[in-house]
Amino acid sequence: VTQSPIPGPVHIIGSGLIGTSLGLALRRVGVDVTVADADETAMDTAISMGAGRLWRDGFPAPRIVVAAVPPSMVGDVLADAARRWPQATFTDVASVKTMTLAKARNAGVPPAQLVGGHPMAGREVSGPHGGRADLFDDRIWVLCPTEEAQPERVGEVSAMVAACGSVSILMTPGAHDAAVAVVSHTPQMLSSVLAAQLADQPEEVVTLAGQGIRDMTRIAESDEGLWEEIVLANRESVVTVLRSVAADIQRVVSELDGGGLPEQPGNSAVAATLRQGAVGRARIPGKHGDIGREFEVVSVMVKDEPGQLASLFVAAGDLGVNLEDVRIEHVLGRPSGLIDLSVRPASAPSLRAGLIEAGFDVRS
Amino acid sequence: VTQSPIPGPVHIIGSGLIGTSLGLALRRVGVDVTVADADETAMDTAISMGAGRLWRDGFPAPRIVVAAVPPSMVGDVLADAARRWPQATFTDVASVKTMTLAKARNAGVPPAQLVGGHPMAGREVSGPHGGRADLFDDRIWVLCPTEEAQPERVGEVSAMVAACGSVSILMTPGAHDAAVAVVSHTPQMLSSVLAAQLADQPEEVVTLAGQGIRDMTRIAESDEGLWEEIVLANRESVVTVLRSVAADIQRVVSELDGGGLPEQPGNSAVAATLRQGAVGRARIPGKHGDIGREFEVVSVMVKDEPGQLASLFVAAGDLGVNLEDVRIEHVLGRPSGLIDLSVRPASAPSLRAGLIEAGFDVRS
Repeated sequence: VTQSPIPGPVHIIGSGLIGTSLGLALRRVGVDVTVADADETAMDTAISMGAGRLWRDGFPAPRIVVAAVPPSMVGDVLADAARRWPQATFTDVASVKTMTLAKARNAGVPPAQLVGGHPMAGREVSGPHGGRADLFDDRIWVLCPTEEAQPERVGEVSAMVAACGSVSILMTPGAHDAAVAVVSHTPQMLSSVLAAQLADQPEEVVTLAGQGIRDMTRIAESDEGLWEEIVLANRESVVTVLRSVAADIQRVVSELDGGGLPEQPGNSAVAATLRQGAVGRARIPGKHGDIGREFEVVSVMVKDEPGQLASLFVAAGDLGVNLEDVRIEHVLGRPSGLIDLSVRPASAPSLRAGLIEAGFDVRS
Repeated sequence: VTQSPIPGPVHIIGSGLIGTSLGLALRRVGVDVTVADADETAMDTAISMGAGRLWRDGFPAPRIVVAAVPPSMVGDVLADAARRWPQATFTDVASVKTMTLAKARNAGVPPAQLVGGHPMAGREVSGPHGGRADLFDDRIWVLCPTEEAQPERVGEVSAMVAACGSVSILMTPGAHDAAVAVVSHTPQMLSSVLAAQLADQPEEVVTLAGQGIRDMTRIAESDEGLWEEIVLANRESVVTVLRSVAADIQRVVSELDGGGLPEQPGNSAVAATLRQGAVGRARIPGKHGDIGREFEVVSVMVKDEPGQLASLFVAAGDLGVNLEDVRIEHVLGRPSGLIDLSVRPASAPSLRAGLIEAGFDVRS
């Protein structure tokens, strides 16, 4: 247990997935954590998992209060806490920041002590049982101080984030909301809109679905209630991106409607869209260059039987090659047996040669 | 080598990935295959790989001629073949059918002998070197006979498809083009449009990109020239779907613009879109019920070191569990170490228990 750099106890309101994980992460480094939740069953579960202890009168006042509750409740929860502990630093974990922080401020949270937060981490499961001490390890955690926030308050929340193993990024609430509208909220809506086109199609149409549309509609399975709340709370930023998307689609629609092929390849709005898309895609970290993590794919055909994948990974491990990613291609709704192994380019030739020598059916 | 059910030699024009794979697949079951390509290097490569022999005068006339060339060339290539071998059956492998078949017919291919085809298979690589005899195994191969096509011609192409290990589905050219507009061409355009929104964003925005937008923009890396040709050739069907997408987006934009939250959760256009998206997503084969392939995910945290994945798959193999899919979650542009194993629901409890007993850090 290392010494905590946080100058006092942390009180976490909300014993869901994030609140419980935060408690576990802070307890891991010896921080004094107290917890509270209107749902006593959830709170008891979090406490029994070691995510903190129940708040009792006579305890020292918390230095940081975290509202780990749904976005719509953050303001009232923090205002209530500010009345009890007027000297504390206040933060939250909501995925929308402008509206959340405005509500907190209006409800009476001192803005000088208010530093919004958004850990870019989550799981498909919810509730305290899904909580993990390492949920935030190596994740980005955006901090959005109010304009009036005292620097030492920002430092305190940043220390808490570091104690959780995360990397802090400072952004204004507006910049944060604009960013997540682009990388998270608009993708969610587009995935749902695309998936919605399948709802009334004849069976033979969906039978032809390949890996592309599968990947693009994966998040269309996301929780309706949570995402309705998020998108409505970030409506201004989301509508800006959706308008840009709609304009790009309209440009293509107008061209396709017009009839007549462009005089030479590459001159169409379709080609311009594909080209700009490739530029945007290349900017995603870990895809190209910027952090030296461009991968090369080695494809191997294995039999769809227990143990076949294992023997492949054993062979890769024996060759000393670390796999950066693994994809199993699907056909007819089941695995094809074609496995794509992503590795550093320097490792690809030896992986290929080694796997072939070991008798594997290497395809590329 | 099994007896071929195809009543005569097959002549394949085009020695790219698909033409070479087709030749290899047919040779695998003893079919007499001849090949031709204006690119002699490609043709020689295909022949040296065993994808067929060079056509020579005096050979028996081919029973089936396959144009394995880009969509824009299919019509002329088949018309030329029809002049040489007027009794043959003619087919192609282009991913757009209405325009391709109309061109072939207009160029002089007898419609009674014309059966369009589209194998739902491909690879990221191109050219004869990427050719594989089993590229079409267990794939769907759509057949689009002309209205005048003789039933025995359809039977011949269907026999060729079966010889390649694929499953034939009969569709009209219009139904095919409408279907691929939904499941393939529109997803491609939406992926590119979404990725294009990233092109001019500040660095801090793309830094926040998570798995959702990564999955949704994967195919934005696709080949510009090929996709421009495909989308323009299928413009009528694509524009219909893009209009429907644009209308759904507009409904959400209008609501977000209007201001004011809906009176109760679930009543918004946002919620309706999310709900309809979930309905559409559930229709993709292998995702829910329809072919008994609903999967359950078991998540395991492993260290980002060589051999760690291998030990996990060895353990899964030892437990007799077949993995239906594997996902490695990424954070900060690199693998997080969290591995999602998709298995049949019946296998999930024993996999979880077995992995925990073997000392693995099972997360769900």
